[in-house]
Amino acid sequence: MQQLNVELGERSYPIYIGSGLLGQPALFTDHIHGRQVCIVTDDTVAPLYLERLCATLKDYQLLKVVLPTGEAFKNWATLQQVFDALLLNRHDRKTTLIALGGGVIGDMTGFAAACYQRGVDFIQVPTTLLSQVDSSVGGKTGINHPAGKNMLGAFYQPQAVIIDTDSLKTLPAREISAGLAEIIKYGLIRDADFLSWLEVNMAALRCLDAALITEAINRSCSIKAEVVAADEREGGVRAILNLGHTFGHAIEAHQGYGQWLHGEAVGAGMVMALDLSRRLGRLNDTDFERGRSLIAAAGLPVSPPAEMTVEDFTELMSVDKKVLDGKLRLVLLRQMGQADVTADFPLESLNATLNAWRQ
Amino acid sequence: MQQLNVELGERSYPIYIGSGLLGQPALFTDHIHGRQVCIVTDDTVAPLYLERLCATLKDYQLLKVVLPTGEAFKNWATLQQVFDALLLNRHDRKTTLIALGGGVIGDMTGFAAACYQRGVDFIQVPTTLLSQVDSSVGGKTGINHPAGKNMLGAFYQPQAVIIDTDSLKTLPAREISAGLAEIIKYGLIRDADFLSWLEVNMAALRCLDAALITEAINRSCSIKAEVVAADEREGGVRAILNLGHTFGHAIEAHQGYGQWLHGEAVGAGMVMALDLSRRLGRLNDTDFERGRSLIAAAGLPVSPPAEMTVEDFTELMSVDKKVLDGKLRLVLLRQMGQADVTADFPLESLNATLNAWRQ
Repeated sequence: MQQLNVELGERSYPIYIGSGLLGQPALFTDHIHGRQVCIVTDDTVAPLYLERLCATLKDYQLLKVVLPTGEAFKNWATLQQVFDALLLNRHDRKTTLIALGGGVIGDMTGFAAACYQRGVDFIQVPTTLLSQVDSSVGGKTGINHPAGKNMLGAFYQPQAVIIDTDSLKTLPAREISAGLAEIIKYGLIRDADFLSWLEVNMAALRCLDAALITEAINRSCSIKAEVVAADEREGGVRAILNLGHTFGHAIEAHQGYGQWLHGEAVGAGMVMALDLSRRLGRLNDTDFERGRSLIAAAGLPVSPPAEMTVEDFTELMSVDKKVLDGKLRLVLLRQMGQADVTADFPLESLNATLNAWRQ
Repeated sequence: MQQLNVELGERSYPIYIGSGLLGQPALFTDHIHGRQVCIVTDDTVAPLYLERLCATLKDYQLLKVVLPTGEAFKNWATLQQVFDALLLNRHDRKTTLIALGGGVIGDMTGFAAACYQRGVDFIQVPTTLLSQVDSSVGGKTGINHPAGKNMLGAFYQPQAVIIDTDSLKTLPAREISAGLAEIIKYGLIRDADFLSWLEVNMAALRCLDAALITEAINRSCSIKAEVVAADEREGGVRAILNLGHTFGHAIEAHQGYGQWLHGEAVGAGMVMALDLSRRLGRLNDTDFERGRSLIAAAGLPVSPPAEMTVEDFTELMSVDKKVLDGKLRLVLLRQMGQADVTADFPLESLNATLNAWRQ
């Protein structure tokens, strides 16, 4: 087992990464401070891992909440099921919520924990590659609003993140690719060496080579932990973690949440961000092609849906949380392995990028 | 104008108390960091003060959201109106929400600010006596759940609290009494001298003597600020601010929110807490009668609704947020001017208190 720490003063917490962690009670009990535990999961993950986790936590007063699967249910109505169950079963302020599932379950359970009785403990047990390397770390929680993804939520840190790499074995290939999108992102924004390492090892990673995938998760979580420690509430540098996400969110919103996987939309979105970076002279053609090829090699789409117009993007991107004083801000690369957030780009260049896939 | 500060490190903020503050732009502009402002109020307060505040803030991009009045609307569906308006009008992360109204508006606006884009700034402009001395200070925000009051929410501090005492002039006498309940509470839990001062001045306070009411607000906010600074997230001493509230919440829930004013329920609830404190030998009969008389002199009910049974109370109090590991904890007086939170009382004594008004 490997261990990292997210350094946030009194809100610091460990990330455990390894095989078989779901079956190790001590990892959980060290971070549970009451007698009541509520496991929140979805109807895809429940048949696979819920009973196993229940066995590990059998000494607690256990409540299980199984939500419908998918981004389409990431809303208040679904969250209400968690609150109803907690209140019906008299869970008090010392209860601990456990998010067992992918990013949607992690975001919703974290937000439920942030709101219930004004805040109770929670533990992230991410079961998808994407949530293991991204959403389970850093305390971003929330739900969608019809007008925009993750528009309602809280910065609320878990007590611990427990990553059992065995859970990847039941993951469809498409979900593995989606997770690789975020892993590639870390190389692009922060670590050129990691990017080269990914180019060498991409095929083996897609086959879930145990040592390599553990290493990739570890390096991804390390980068994320470092960025989050520097800027917990996204006042500055943390925004670079959104490379490709503004384009990607527009794609997800346009297609209807859950049609494209988040990682797929981020894959295509990152290619668009690389394209704009190239148009602005920040990257050369070789850099762009390296990035595009790596994203393609991960099995991800490298262009947006053919039917999306410039107007679709413009409209959907204008509600992005990075918009300030009416000005759209985007994460762009300065060079391979370095990114910044900027509103300093000509609208024509952005439009050229949005148009590039329309011909 | 008087100024206090709530000392919470980087989350510290001022409380301004005085006449005519709604018309002073500088008090607001010092605490607004963007161009967008969203005033949230209700359909009772809007006709009285909304245009005045809009005139004061005319240089901003102003959005007005007028919600239906009352505790019955303190829920997610109503909150959704705020989110819809913010998103429709493209309010970004630098927007500032202003709560113009009583405790319900303050709690809801604060929770909306806590959730919108994972947290934006907000300013409290409490217009009722109760919200001026209690709910606007300290960062407790939230909404009700059918199973319990304030069950969903956040600890989220405002940028400033601006108390314009002129707004009390339009307040019905019943609401003044409700505010006095919380003012009396501060004396009972923390300041025997203040309690004596209130006994002397209660009649003049009910007539809204300007100097006396300003002094009462100032002393109340000082005590609250001190308690909150010592324990922001209610891990300990802050719970004493809930004197009478566990009984009071049960009364409100039983009657249907909004039938009894919160302060009225707290008034009767404090008499019940004094009664239990007496039964446990913590107070003598004279102390009890002093407290009961002062609450009566404020124009508040001093007994629960006649139709409420012991079972009603037991059932409704069991979901209180102070319940831990199945054990009900109550705020009781140690002596006049001192309180603690305890689960150390015989059930028979509690039942005797619950029965006392049934004969």
